[in-house]
Amino acid sequence: MREVAIAGVAMTKFGISEDTCIEMFGQAATGALVKSDIEPKDIEALFLGNCLGDFEDGQAHMGAHIHTALGLPMAAPAFRFENACATATVAIRQAALMVGAGIYDVVLAGGTERVAAMDTPMATRTFAMASNSCYSAPTGITFPGVFAMAAHMYAGKYGMDISSLSEYMAHVSVKNHFHASMNPKAQFQKEISVEKVLESFMVADPLHFLDCCPFSDGASAVVIASKEKAVQMTDKPVYIIGTGQAAGGPVINNPDMTRIKPREVASAMAYKEAGVTPGDIDLCELHDCFTIAEILAIEGLGFYEFGKGYDAAKKGETRLGSDRTVINPSGGLKAKGHPIGATGAAQVTEIVEQLRGESKERQVEGARTGLVDTLGGEFGTVCNLILRSYA
Amino acid sequence: MREVAIAGVAMTKFGISEDTCIEMFGQAATGALVKSDIEPKDIEALFLGNCLGDFEDGQAHMGAHIHTALGLPMAAPAFRFENACATATVAIRQAALMVGAGIYDVVLAGGTERVAAMDTPMATRTFAMASNSCYSAPTGITFPGVFAMAAHMYAGKYGMDISSLSEYMAHVSVKNHFHASMNPKAQFQKEISVEKVLESFMVADPLHFLDCCPFSDGASAVVIASKEKAVQMTDKPVYIIGTGQAAGGPVINNPDMTRIKPREVASAMAYKEAGVTPGDIDLCELHDCFTIAEILAIEGLGFYEFGKGYDAAKKGETRLGSDRTVINPSGGLKAKGHPIGATGAAQVTEIVEQLRGESKERQVEGARTGLVDTLGGEFGTVCNLILRSYA
Repeated sequence: MREVAIAGVAMTKFGISEDTCIEMFGQAATGALVKSDIEPKDIEALFLGNCLGDFEDGQAHMGAHIHTALGLPMAAPAFRFENACATATVAIRQAALMVGAGIYDVVLAGGTERVAAMDTPMATRTFAMASNSCYSAPTGITFPGVFAMAAHMYAGKYGMDISSLSEYMAHVSVKNHFHASMNPKAQFQKEISVEKVLESFMVADPLHFLDCCPFSDGASAVVIASKEKAVQMTDKPVYIIGTGQAAGGPVINNPDMTRIKPREVASAMAYKEAGVTPGDIDLCELHDCFTIAEILAIEGLGFYEFGKGYDAAKKGETRLGSDRTVINPSGGLKAKGHPIGATGAAQVTEIVEQLRGESKERQVEGARTGLVDTLGGEFGTVCNLILRSYA
Repeated sequence: MREVAIAGVAMTKFGISEDTCIEMFGQAATGALVKSDIEPKDIEALFLGNCLGDFEDGQAHMGAHIHTALGLPMAAPAFRFENACATATVAIRQAALMVGAGIYDVVLAGGTERVAAMDTPMATRTFAMASNSCYSAPTGITFPGVFAMAAHMYAGKYGMDISSLSEYMAHVSVKNHFHASMNPKAQFQKEISVEKVLESFMVADPLHFLDCCPFSDGASAVVIASKEKAVQMTDKPVYIIGTGQAAGGPVINNPDMTRIKPREVASAMAYKEAGVTPGDIDLCELHDCFTIAEILAIEGLGFYEFGKGYDAAKKGETRLGSDRTVINPSGGLKAKGHPIGATGAAQVTEIVEQLRGESKERQVEGARTGLVDTLGGEFGTVCNLILRSYA
């Protein structure tokens, strides 16, 4: 495999949009092309992530329609990927593998999603289709329920009472809102307090409203190229030095929900390929769809031992300025927003900008190596990418 | 790129099923694994095609759920692809490229769809989402309308009156039903007559009911491997010697609907890679969603000059036993059925069985080289594969 780099990245502001999925991706893609100093004619394939465009915009077959909207060459194939919330990361990894193998030299990847256009019941119902329709959905479970169960299991396994875990979780939300307060692309750019989280209404015990990520609209796009091409396009290429993806079953197959096994498999794959350990990761954008999910992730990714990650946010270890791995400097899914099929590409966008030293107020000083972690469904897909700048 | 072969193929009977998409794919995949003499643990990745599982079974994120249902290894990633009716062919091509590049050695690909479970208005509406939701859908057009317009344009361009074109189109349907009468997996296993086609009710002038493919349920799966692995799995490997994929815009961008440009680009790519010409193709499974579509396809793929393909079926040139390229020996989408996300894999299944000499009554004698052609949406995606047996 030859070396693969990211030349340009861009994202729309996450939040509520009146644009279609195609229009939002068009905006992000144009930004990524401009940053890469190339034109649509230079793109050899489109790896497009989208989960629910048929419900959101009445639009399936979105790869081909975005291809035309951008004016890509007819000989450049367009693919639509859907792997629940891990969709865009899967599309980007697939693109990186194909560029690494020499199948393409320059490709466009990313994702787009218009979730806030649906009302909450519709969004909840369509999201729930990512869980198993035979085994999980008939129980009435939705994703807040899945992660609420995981929180109770975590508290039970490690002998914590649930109210103390609630307070630790609230610190995750506070930290991510703090980071997002410095991110002009974030859906929520204001700080909140632990008290405010604990006072917010209960969605699925013990998850309060402010433990949960929002419904969001947005898109993000990434130009991926061979090293040879990338160095012609930018003087700050960011290299994809390791990737991993794994799959697992519905939660009924995961009796210990405090351990998301596909994450352990996928991240081990990525660390091995990159030749790094968790201790080498300066910053990580990970899948904090709920605050408990961030705690599970920092343990599953090896930043903390199992059962020891719960107080990392409270102690400030995952916060900007810490000398440990900074977690979700963008604000994460919690505060930057979570347009599901676009999320992975926005995580990549944050890491790339950080590794280039372009993140202004929320810059992680000296960042050289970053990890992307995206979880799909009830633990069904995990995809990881390790990025490095050699600047 | 190293040589890539298909080791085993299988499909469910197409028609009306009470099984879910996951269950149907499980049946097809099990068949393909058995034919390949391997077990789920041997699979390194799953390339799963599905278009509308969320509408059909309330099931998104289907790659991961099928992965679990089959008991694939956690480290084997699962991807869901959606490219409208070309979905499974795109998934298979992606799999072949990745195996060819050495990323994987043995993978499972294919597709599954449960269309007949939806009533006709729902199926029509959901299919129409593959057309452009801003430019095409608001005109009220559906796919019968797209191809009816193409038929009128064809008649106009080549100076035919529409009733004579109708009769030529009817011969396509008769020929494909004849082929399907010998295919135990086909949805319709009975012959029809030209008169019966012309007497059937009008769906979208000039397309009669029997010019149109049915709504179908079904799944098909393919095991793809490096040559080195494939020869250990079967003594009849079928090689993927050329592939192509191209993308185009909505029909408003295609003022001449008699020429589907992405097909011309994709097939040229495949012919070039394979080092063959249309004259070398013994049999072809192509996208006859409507009878006019078969006429457009045999011209676009280079078997006939533009404007000269209309009478090929009437003259018996595309029928089993002809000394020209046999078209749709399986019965095609028209009579074998068209479970959209599974169709491309079933086309591959037919070609593989034919090249192995396993097609019994409908065997194309001496078949060595076959072409797969699948069209997605209103000409938005075309994907082609050229397969060869060296036996």
